[in-house]
Amino acid sequence: MFGFHYFTPTKVVFGKNTESQAADLIKEFGGTKVLIHYGGGSVVRSGLLKRVTDNLDAAGISYVALGGAVPNPRLGLVYEGIELCKKENVDFLLAVGGGSAIDSAKAIGYGVANEGDVWDFYDYKREAKGCLPLGVILTIAATGSEMSNSSVITKEEGLVKRGYSSDFGRPKFAIMNPELTMTLPDYQTACGCTDIMMHTMERYFTNGGNMEITDALAEGLLRTVKKNAVILRDNPKDYDARAEVMWAGSLAHNGLTGCGNDGGDWMTHKLEHELGGLYDVAHGAGLAAIWGSWARYVYKNCLPRFKRFALNVCEVEDKGTDEEIALRGIEAMEDFYRSINMPTNLRELGVNPTEDELVLMAHKCAVGVGGEMGSAKVLNEEAMLAIFRASV
Amino acid sequence: MFGFHYFTPTKVVFGKNTESQAADLIKEFGGTKVLIHYGGGSVVRSGLLKRVTDNLDAAGISYVALGGAVPNPRLGLVYEGIELCKKENVDFLLAVGGGSAIDSAKAIGYGVANEGDVWDFYDYKREAKGCLPLGVILTIAATGSEMSNSSVITKEEGLVKRGYSSDFGRPKFAIMNPELTMTLPDYQTACGCTDIMMHTMERYFTNGGNMEITDALAEGLLRTVKKNAVILRDNPKDYDARAEVMWAGSLAHNGLTGCGNDGGDWMTHKLEHELGGLYDVAHGAGLAAIWGSWARYVYKNCLPRFKRFALNVCEVEDKGTDEEIALRGIEAMEDFYRSINMPTNLRELGVNPTEDELVLMAHKCAVGVGGEMGSAKVLNEEAMLAIFRASV
Repeated sequence: MFGFHYFTPTKVVFGKNTESQAADLIKEFGGTKVLIHYGGGSVVRSGLLKRVTDNLDAAGISYVALGGAVPNPRLGLVYEGIELCKKENVDFLLAVGGGSAIDSAKAIGYGVANEGDVWDFYDYKREAKGCLPLGVILTIAATGSEMSNSSVITKEEGLVKRGYSSDFGRPKFAIMNPELTMTLPDYQTACGCTDIMMHTMERYFTNGGNMEITDALAEGLLRTVKKNAVILRDNPKDYDARAEVMWAGSLAHNGLTGCGNDGGDWMTHKLEHELGGLYDVAHGAGLAAIWGSWARYVYKNCLPRFKRFALNVCEVEDKGTDEEIALRGIEAMEDFYRSINMPTNLRELGVNPTEDELVLMAHKCAVGVGGEMGSAKVLNEEAMLAIFRASV
Repeated sequence: MFGFHYFTPTKVVFGKNTESQAADLIKEFGGTKVLIHYGGGSVVRSGLLKRVTDNLDAAGISYVALGGAVPNPRLGLVYEGIELCKKENVDFLLAVGGGSAIDSAKAIGYGVANEGDVWDFYDYKREAKGCLPLGVILTIAATGSEMSNSSVITKEEGLVKRGYSSDFGRPKFAIMNPELTMTLPDYQTACGCTDIMMHTMERYFTNGGNMEITDALAEGLLRTVKKNAVILRDNPKDYDARAEVMWAGSLAHNGLTGCGNDGGDWMTHKLEHELGGLYDVAHGAGLAAIWGSWARYVYKNCLPRFKRFALNVCEVEDKGTDEEIALRGIEAMEDFYRSINMPTNLRELGVNPTEDELVLMAHKCAVGVGGEMGSAKVLNEEAMLAIFRASV
């Protein structure tokens, strides 16, 4: 096992009607002028935005609002947000939405608190020295951005999708009311469950050190999401299942399920980032579409972990060789994805790349990770291309 | 399930030689004049205190030191620490040790940051409005105080042992090097493992709401500690086992294993506090000595949880009635305690109270909790006395 840092300062307020505490929490963390940043119209149509502005009005907190954060949030809107914050002397960001609004808000926060071009951080050119304080009202359980140190932004020019991680970006508070996720389309709920599981699976499939307690927590979390994703497929209004998935989403990506390991594998995410950059597919669906091909390419190099996953998460029978058990686990995971209407290849995802596009994605991916990357198995550009080809 | 707050801002730095980062962390959190607070001579004899002061000297951080924190830390030393901090203009506390040094440091921090008598907080008379910032170098895995919001202090007059919880008291950072725990006496290691498990078991045995994910994390944590406690009995120098137990100790008491429940039961702790106040026994051993009697008194009122505990933590066979399974779980837990040389009654703990003393402890306990308390089963003074009598 390795040493580790663990830092999750976000104050979580979880349960029904917790959005009514937004103004109090903003005051607690010193906010006086707020940028409310949100995504599409659902936050408006559902009345949530109105409830939030009423709450701030009643508390005498002034604010400006900026909507328009889209899945795979764009750099252009980030620049717009930075300008707005500077013009209006905003000292606190409130993201209302899912990962898109939160990631976009984090980028705005870096842009306001640091000189120069905010894209530098996402382009690995320099480190942020601060971030405007940020609170979250979460409406989609998926990215875990509400407690994580990471954000992902897409630069329109060349559709370059990049992630940046800094503890400065961890939200000060996260308001989580499972009821707010009940109106999500089923497809988005399933995408969220996939993303949540993948955040922990990326940390789980490693050849670096492991801790027993981390494995036990990870497996418990994965079993919980797997079970409740199916419950939500059949009954999207099940409050308890919504709550299980929502809390799992935060714990899956706040660092807890990676303590003591080597940092994780993360290649499924890197491969999906290229898909997301080029085709604007839903992140969770992209992950599901690529994971099986990745797993079959790497499992022999990481057999003890794949066997353990098969037994303790997928609950397959403990018979046959380790390879057979590992492969049955991969199949069981793909069966699960299909059972919640997630794709297990690019065709099912609805994209049909040309060979040139596959080559381009593998090349961009390799450049993005600095040549090669991975822990279950280190992948170079050739390996990335092989996985993309197998996933068609 | 219930809504919940979750707030664990402590920056954890975990692994070998991490104590060398103390000065950097103190600076990161704004400390310029430090009170180093520690317990007995082991921190001096092992050379740890010298390494810490050398580290601070090299960084140009000035400090004063105050030793003498004892198990069941005393109010007198807290007052002494408060005076010293005020006299020396201390702006940061560094606790070097286990729960005694940390809890005592938290109380000193409340005393410096608030007017009036610090005992008021422990006497439930008023709430603290702040705490001097506090860092920890942990040398004993047990109380979880390094990430928790709670501290327990004993007032010498009448030997009144009381806990106070406030988020202000959560440490800014916790340095955890499992190697620092390797020289602990076996008895203290086993006491620590017991205390760790009990922090999660108190949250587990409830009749309030539950969350599946919380249960899965709790059970995974309990199995991990149970297994590694036995490894440490046979090989106290096993680094990995030390690390598993150390990290479990923090997670068992930082709130993670109680999310979604009703706050927990906590009566085993309350009963043990009376033992600890009167006899100055090791906290973990006191918990082990009382738990079985408590469990047999309450299990019929909380049967689904005791059954689940028996199957998923104690891994007893799933046959017979629910009551039989629950009872086999209690027996298996007591077998485990005995296997690591922990007592399962007061005699084995080495105390032999008179009937008058049992009556006195039950009375003090009932007064301390405001009449009655408990979630697995609500206990009044008569019930407390019955459990004390059964534990003799």
